[in-house]
Amino acid sequence: MKKELPIITSDKFHDECAVFGIYNHEEAANLTYLGLYALQHRGQEASGIVSGDGDQFFVHKGMGLVADIYNKTVLDKLPGHMAIGHNRYSTAGGNDLKNVQPLTVNFAFGNLALAHNGNLINAQVLRNELEAYGAIFQSTSDSEVIIHLIAHSRADTFLARVVDALSQVRGAFSVVLMTDNGLIAARDPHGLRPLCLGRVRSSWIVASETCAFDLLDAEYVREIEPGELVVISDQGLDSHRPFAKTHPAMCVFEYVYFARPDSRIFGANAVYAIRKALGRQLAHESWVPADIVIPVPDSGVPAALGYAEGGGIRFETGLIRNHYVGRTFIEPEQSIRHFGVKVKLNAVPEVLEGKRVVVVDDSLVRGTTSRKIVKMIRQAGAKEVHMRISSPPIVSPCFYGIDTPTKKELIASNHSAEEIRKYITADSLAYLSLDGMLKAAPGTPDQYCNACFTEKYPIPFTRAEELQLGLFESAH
Amino acid sequence: MKKELPIITSDKFHDECAVFGIYNHEEAANLTYLGLYALQHRGQEASGIVSGDGDQFFVHKGMGLVADIYNKTVLDKLPGHMAIGHNRYSTAGGNDLKNVQPLTVNFAFGNLALAHNGNLINAQVLRNELEAYGAIFQSTSDSEVIIHLIAHSRADTFLARVVDALSQVRGAFSVVLMTDNGLIAARDPHGLRPLCLGRVRSSWIVASETCAFDLLDAEYVREIEPGELVVISDQGLDSHRPFAKTHPAMCVFEYVYFARPDSRIFGANAVYAIRKALGRQLAHESWVPADIVIPVPDSGVPAALGYAEGGGIRFETGLIRNHYVGRTFIEPEQSIRHFGVKVKLNAVPEVLEGKRVVVVDDSLVRGTTSRKIVKMIRQAGAKEVHMRISSPPIVSPCFYGIDTPTKKELIASNHSAEEIRKYITADSLAYLSLDGMLKAAPGTPDQYCNACFTEKYPIPFTRAEELQLGLFESAH
Amino acid sequence: MKKELPIITSDKFHDECAVFGIYNHEEAANLTYLGLYALQHRGQEASGIVSGDGDQFFVHKGMGLVADIYNKTVLDKLPGHMAIGHNRYSTAGGNDLKNVQPLTVNFAFGNLALAHNGNLINAQVLRNELEAYGAIFQSTSDSEVIIHLIAHSRADTFLARVVDALSQVRGAFSVVLMTDNGLIAARDPHGLRPLCLGRVRSSWIVASETCAFDLLDAEYVREIEPGELVVISDQGLDSHRPFAKTHPAMCVFEYVYFARPDSRIFGANAVYAIRKALGRQLAHESWVPADIVIPVPDSGVPAALGYAEGGGIRFETGLIRNHYVGRTFIEPEQSIRHFGVKVKLNAVPEVLEGKRVVVVDDSLVRGTTSRKIVKMIRQAGAKEVHMRISSPPIVSPCFYGIDTPTKKELIASNHSAEEIRKYITADSLAYLSLDGMLKAAPGTPDQYCNACFTEKYPIPFTRAEELQLGLFESAH
Amino acid sequence: MKKELPIITSDKFHDECAVFGIYNHEEAANLTYLGLYALQHRGQEASGIVSGDGDQFFVHKGMGLVADIYNKTVLDKLPGHMAIGHNRYSTAGGNDLKNVQPLTVNFAFGNLALAHNGNLINAQVLRNELEAYGAIFQSTSDSEVIIHLIAHSRADTFLARVVDALSQVRGAFSVVLMTDNGLIAARDPHGLRPLCLGRVRSSWIVASETCAFDLLDAEYVREIEPGELVVISDQGLDSHRPFAKTHPAMCVFEYVYFARPDSRIFGANAVYAIRKALGRQLAHESWVPADIVIPVPDSGVPAALGYAEGGGIRFETGLIRNHYVGRTFIEPEQSIRHFGVKVKLNAVPEVLEGKRVVVVDDSLVRGTTSRKIVKMIRQAGAKEVHMRISSPPIVSPCFYGIDTPTKKELIASNHSAEEIRKYITADSLAYLSLDGMLKAAPGTPDQYCNACFTEKYPIPFTRAEELQLGLFESAH
Repeated sequence: MKKELPIITSDKFHDECAVFGIYNHEEAANLTYLGLYALQHRGQEASGIVSGDGDQFFVHKGMGLVADIYNKTVLDKLPGHMAIGHNRYSTAGGNDLKNVQPLTVNFAFGNLALAHNGNLINAQVLRNELEAYGAIFQSTSDSEVIIHLIAHSRADTFLARVVDALSQVRGAFSVVLMTDNGLIAARDPHGLRPLCLGRVRSSWIVASETCAFDLLDAEYVREIEPGELVVISDQGLDSHRPFAKTHPAMCVFEYVYFARPDSRIFGANAVYAIRKALGRQLAHESWVPADIVIPVPDSGVPAALGYAEGGGIRFETGLIRNHYVGRTFIEPEQSIRHFGVKVKLNAVPEVLEGKRVVVVDDSLVRGTTSRKIVKMIRQAGAKEVHMRISSPPIVSPCFYGIDTPTKKELIASNHSAEEIRKYITADSLAYLSLDGMLKAAPGTPDQYCNACFTEKYPIPFTRAEELQLGLFESAH
Repeated sequence: MKKELPIITSDKFHDECAVFGIYNHEEAANLTYLGLYALQHRGQEASGIVSGDGDQFFVHKGMGLVADIYNKTVLDKLPGHMAIGHNRYSTAGGNDLKNVQPLTVNFAFGNLALAHNGNLINAQVLRNELEAYGAIFQSTSDSEVIIHLIAHSRADTFLARVVDALSQVRGAFSVVLMTDNGLIAARDPHGLRPLCLGRVRSSWIVASETCAFDLLDAEYVREIEPGELVVISDQGLDSHRPFAKTHPAMCVFEYVYFARPDSRIFGANAVYAIRKALGRQLAHESWVPADIVIPVPDSGVPAALGYAEGGGIRFETGLIRNHYVGRTFIEPEQSIRHFGVKVKLNAVPEVLEGKRVVVVDDSLVRGTTSRKIVKMIRQAGAKEVHMRISSPPIVSPCFYGIDTPTKKELIASNHSAEEIRKYITADSLAYLSLDGMLKAAPGTPDQYCNACFTEKYPIPFTRAEELQLGLFESAH
Repeated sequence: MKKELPIITSDKFHDECAVFGIYNHEEAANLTYLGLYALQHRGQEASGIVSGDGDQFFVHKGMGLVADIYNKTVLDKLPGHMAIGHNRYSTAGGNDLKNVQPLTVNFAFGNLALAHNGNLINAQVLRNELEAYGAIFQSTSDSEVIIHLIAHSRADTFLARVVDALSQVRGAFSVVLMTDNGLIAARDPHGLRPLCLGRVRSSWIVASETCAFDLLDAEYVREIEPGELVVISDQGLDSHRPFAKTHPAMCVFEYVYFARPDSRIFGANAVYAIRKALGRQLAHESWVPADIVIPVPDSGVPAALGYAEGGGIRFETGLIRNHYVGRTFIEPEQSIRHFGVKVKLNAVPEVLEGKRVVVVDDSLVRGTTSRKIVKMIRQAGAKEVHMRISSPPIVSPCFYGIDTPTKKELIASNHSAEEIRKYITADSLAYLSLDGMLKAAPGTPDQYCNACFTEKYPIPFTRAEELQLGLFESAH
Repeated sequence: MKKELPIITSDKFHDECAVFGIYNHEEAANLTYLGLYALQHRGQEASGIVSGDGDQFFVHKGMGLVADIYNKTVLDKLPGHMAIGHNRYSTAGGNDLKNVQPLTVNFAFGNLALAHNGNLINAQVLRNELEAYGAIFQSTSDSEVIIHLIAHSRADTFLARVVDALSQVRGAFSVVLMTDNGLIAARDPHGLRPLCLGRVRSSWIVASETCAFDLLDAEYVREIEPGELVVISDQGLDSHRPFAKTHPAMCVFEYVYFARPDSRIFGANAVYAIRKALGRQLAHESWVPADIVIPVPDSGVPAALGYAEGGGIRFETGLIRNHYVGRTFIEPEQSIRHFGVKVKLNAVPEVLEGKRVVVVDDSLVRGTTSRKIVKMIRQAGAKEVHMRISSPPIVSPCFYGIDTPTKKELIASNHSAEEIRKYITADSLAYLSLDGMLKAAPGTPDQYCNACFTEKYPIPFTRAEELQLGLFESAH
């Protein structure tokens, strides 16, 4: 008899989105498409582009990958000299097209479109207030709150309304707005999510990461700074600092896992170099005698190379990744066993047989994937398996835009390293220390948000927020 | 004004297909789906599964990737205890569903399905003869000839008809047939394409490569030998040697590029190890003083690791690959430049700046991609760029199932290595020697087909075939 | 060379929509589907159903015909004991799904869905005011104004808010609302559009016409009266009269053309009987010696039968209608002539040859279709063609929910009957008189809106409305 | 709890198909589309067009209605100066696209396409023989036999092969073939199905019925005669009589039900006039005192008019038909009753109440629909219901292309008229007599096939055919 086919999901953190915007380019939508394509790793669930010609907006959205959603016919229907785009990871709020960004509305000031990366911790509180005033929400996305705050603001100018709105939201936002007159890009005062400014000839570009600029042969100008708001119009670019000043708290996990290795974010050099440094530091902290170092591909490769170099151990690729795995791979039921990570990874016995193996991964969330990987390596004949993680134990969920499991599901929040080692059946397990991680990251330690490793959230929660985010228990 | 968006195509050889078959499993179609999924790299244009319950056949075919074509609903409509499947690369004969394999017919002997990897050099000659006898072809695929030869054979038994048919075709075939009674798998006398035999509990499996067995937790039993034909039915497995004996001529390019690194083919160990050996041999033959060795990912990775180890030079990943690139990526027109390889690869300046770089690729076909890669590396700041190719110059097209460009388009067929070096703008260029390649490959040199490197085709062409394959000029 | 293929559109008035609602039935969505199916003639562009289980709403909408939009799978995903539905005719506001009703929102009071038949003349004025208060509209439909008025109302209870909202809108509304607690159905004080109340066992039903009840084997209870609002919940049915009282002004054109002949609307008997009476009256007013009376099928059939009976002339069906004509029939370009009405109608020479023919149609809008029909009849051999119209000349557009052409396009608004006769090339042309029409309609003449025949609009326009509806010129 | 929703199917005979062909027109595919549109009533399950430019064939096929399958984009991809088309009714052989005609093949003589109306009684016998010779069939359609017979013929010319092939098939065929050189149209020696020849300017047209010519403004030239084969090419039109001569046996049921009332078929005048004559004859044979005569719309209208005129009783439309009923209407389950014919028809109580009603239908197959109609009329208040059928009792299935139920399901094959009257609960029931029907039909009685009324089949069955058609029992 046939049985249910379970969906295989990843045991990884996932970022919520990528944003992109371009002004003053005759092929604005085409370049937005390319930018979103380069930013695909930040959101693979859905994508949208809104272009504008100063008079009208043109919209296309779809579920799936950038390369599948857009084609020549679609792009030809997105004319105009400016455009913004968005890739979305999670289906928070249902996998409905109405939750796919950019959100667009027509209101008293004309057309408005919004693309938002990050998460607002007071979204529900604000939504309740706005609804009490008669606001009607189209979506279940927290980002729509920003639009209603702009619409309900009593400030005189559109810019003043945007500042008014963004001053009321708390949490993470790297946001790009488009009106009939141009773009506004803004980053929350803590700068939790990245946002970069670029330029190709006479066009301004904003994007979550610089890998989007590289594909467009655009020049990387600088970061949009934490707390900065830039207005891009036919008057050129104007920078504003409208929010109360505070210390930066940039997401260190962007370095560990999210950002593409060839991107520069937070004003630093390529993420690849930082990841190699994390691996070197890891070798320094927890070296173990071994024959080979292998990465969990692809995200573990730079750290594994760093570990191999720093540790003087040979680098090998003992796990082969199937790059055709879709997000909806279904697993036929079999009596013997579940497929798990096997549809993504396959071990190479010729590499592993009889070897003492160090396997390097960037992070360890629930432990289920690591357990399967250790077993797969051992089954291929490895003599010893030493798991090394190029970041500290994750003990606490993120509320700023990363789709983490609950505290209960984070294995490190309620198990010791030795308990985890036993669970994943490794011969040894070592995490990178917090200090070690911050030493490998550029700049000063206090400029980063480490809440997922430390439970120290840079933005204090109000009681209402604690209740709505289900934080009450975890706070005690 | 908007312009045409050109399609970006790869500058790589491509194999024609993957085949898979399973007999005596209650979830035959589910396992075929998984097998095709693991064999996705051998054909990404289309896929099909035909299952059978001894009485009826059930078919599903589609254009695109395995993960997109099949889902639970589709697989539930493919009942039965046996199934065969096929992934197709090229659109030779039009991108029509009717050319998607397995081909199925209902004829005097009942139901028949066929999945074929390889190319028949006398297909057109045979087709003309069959049509003169009243045969009506459904597709433009060369594989359909085999079916009509079976239908028109005057032999008594079905097996005798299959032997009769396969004895008439010349060229490469690794073929799996399904009838209401079971499977027949056969490999041409030269064994040009791989075909492996496996077993999971009481079910027999055949597949192009062993990576399909690994995903199913199936056991690798052995190769189907060149010239062997096996019959799988409720009588078990019977092996036959019905064809005139000849020397083997297995495609060495399977080692160089096609096969997945974790597969075993041609009875040898993992392809990964062979590729590393090719890289080591390359370092031995053409070492150059350098700071780092980088691969052209993903196919160049094992050879680059071998070169780095053998050459004592540091391995780095200086080119980052975007794994989301679809086969139909469209490139917006821009005045300045074309995108080319940039949508797939991006250089990391932090790795390359100021360095003497050895870049290792598996093969060099037209030279256009290599040229772009060299430029990209230099633009990222490299001081020197040394291109190393882990196979000899390709001088001649393949007629046995690989979709190669014509002789005219193969840069090495009419240019010296120095001319090619100048064209790709590298500081130096070296290919692996033919002897070196064959030394790194397991077994004796004479068991391989090297026609693409040597123009020595293992199967002599008749005059009619030369004319139909457009070989006349090239033969003189 | 190929040329553009023009779309063939009808030369008929069209009503905007059908509404349906049912409460307290275990198959609420199934019955709504059947009801919408029976009401298909009132809107063929799009359809939607929203069901509710007291906690959640479930929605399905699509473009096209009811029979194509819904199927078992879709209906199974619409659980709950109550549902409302809507068929939409026009694409006013774009053919976007977001304009397809029922509109649904989640606001401070929970879930709300709305289905509206009719047109509001102060919608734009109200929308401007609401937007100034920060309201963000999802659609371009006038109906959405009602929802925002409810959301912005400061009244205490939900019912009070609905009354508050409906008291502010001016124009035609037969509206059905659904909340988590039940349905509210209301009809504007003039009762411009029909709305009927029915019952099947313990379930209440509301529908635009009674033909929906017949299909469900439901009992016709009575009309929802002009100015009445009924609340249907687990408390049963409550009737309210919350609006300022005024005289009724029911659309007489429902009798002439819109309603299905087997429906009872406005509390009267079957429309079929009224249409026959219009035809009899027409024969009385404008009899002409003839051999046969033929209808323009299907809408002209009852009036033609009335004319034939009243005039003592033989009834024939000399025009055959092709019922497979889709709404998107495309007409290949030909040098000789345009197809026009020919794709819908074909003349039968055997019936018409040598005859003096009276052809009866229900109305004459632009005259282009009548002209083609007269020609077609004459080409089939008719000796004389006498056109008879079972309603008065249409001189003025409707602003209460019927999609009429502008005054300029209405041939009778600027041409005499004799000019029209010449244009349509008939031997004679006669309209039914206004008095004659009102004599055939049940009840007193002053209970109907005849604005399209008389330019006397029952609801006076404000200056702002005149401007926005483009009435300025026509008022002078 | 939700239950299964049954599909409502019609209780009517259905014809298998419509064929169309045009030669020498720059918009051949466009006109074929229009022709198929006019012939929609002969097949609503699927449709296909194949066009040719003398070199290549271009194909489009789909499931559903003509208006839904074709659009401008599709038609633009069907270039060439000739085309043939086909509408298909039944899903005999599965609802697969591969069974949708025109069938196309590429064989020794080049391209060939075939559209066939009718049914071959020796198709299975011939198929078995062909398969024994190695023929491979693409479809399960009987029509494909003709193509293989052509391909296997040893005759010298293509025309000789077609004659050879058509001389071997027995049964009904009105067939249109297209090659790269032109069209061949042929009708079986009995002329069971209609086939008409027309002309528009310099283009020849063939079509199942003349209503296709009317829509194209084409001239009706004449019938293709029983046993005639015409060749249409750039040499003009050539008529051949290659088959053994026999008596005609044209399907009289085309007059009773199938053909469109405005068509001329079998060389006679409009079907409408014949149907009225059938109704007049019916009134003559079985007059009954009554107040009104009503038709079962739409097919019963002409006969009801004839009955009303001939019987001196008033004609009314007491049943209203919903023309939006799709072929896949699904019926929600309800405890009380089934919907049956109610989704198509609704009674008008105002017309029927207190009346003695004669209801006229064209035929009575299983009796289930008539039973529901009688009940519906009585429920609407009729005092008496007299059912009159404008054809004789159907006692025997058709094997020449009409999709009839088996003998067992034909109520008249095993019940007396009185038993049927009781079953349908009518006050009286009368069929038209066989003699009466043949008197109303034009020409001599012996030129028609009346097998469904008389069990006298014009083509004798061989024993093999009897077995394969399941006739053994019925023959005894």
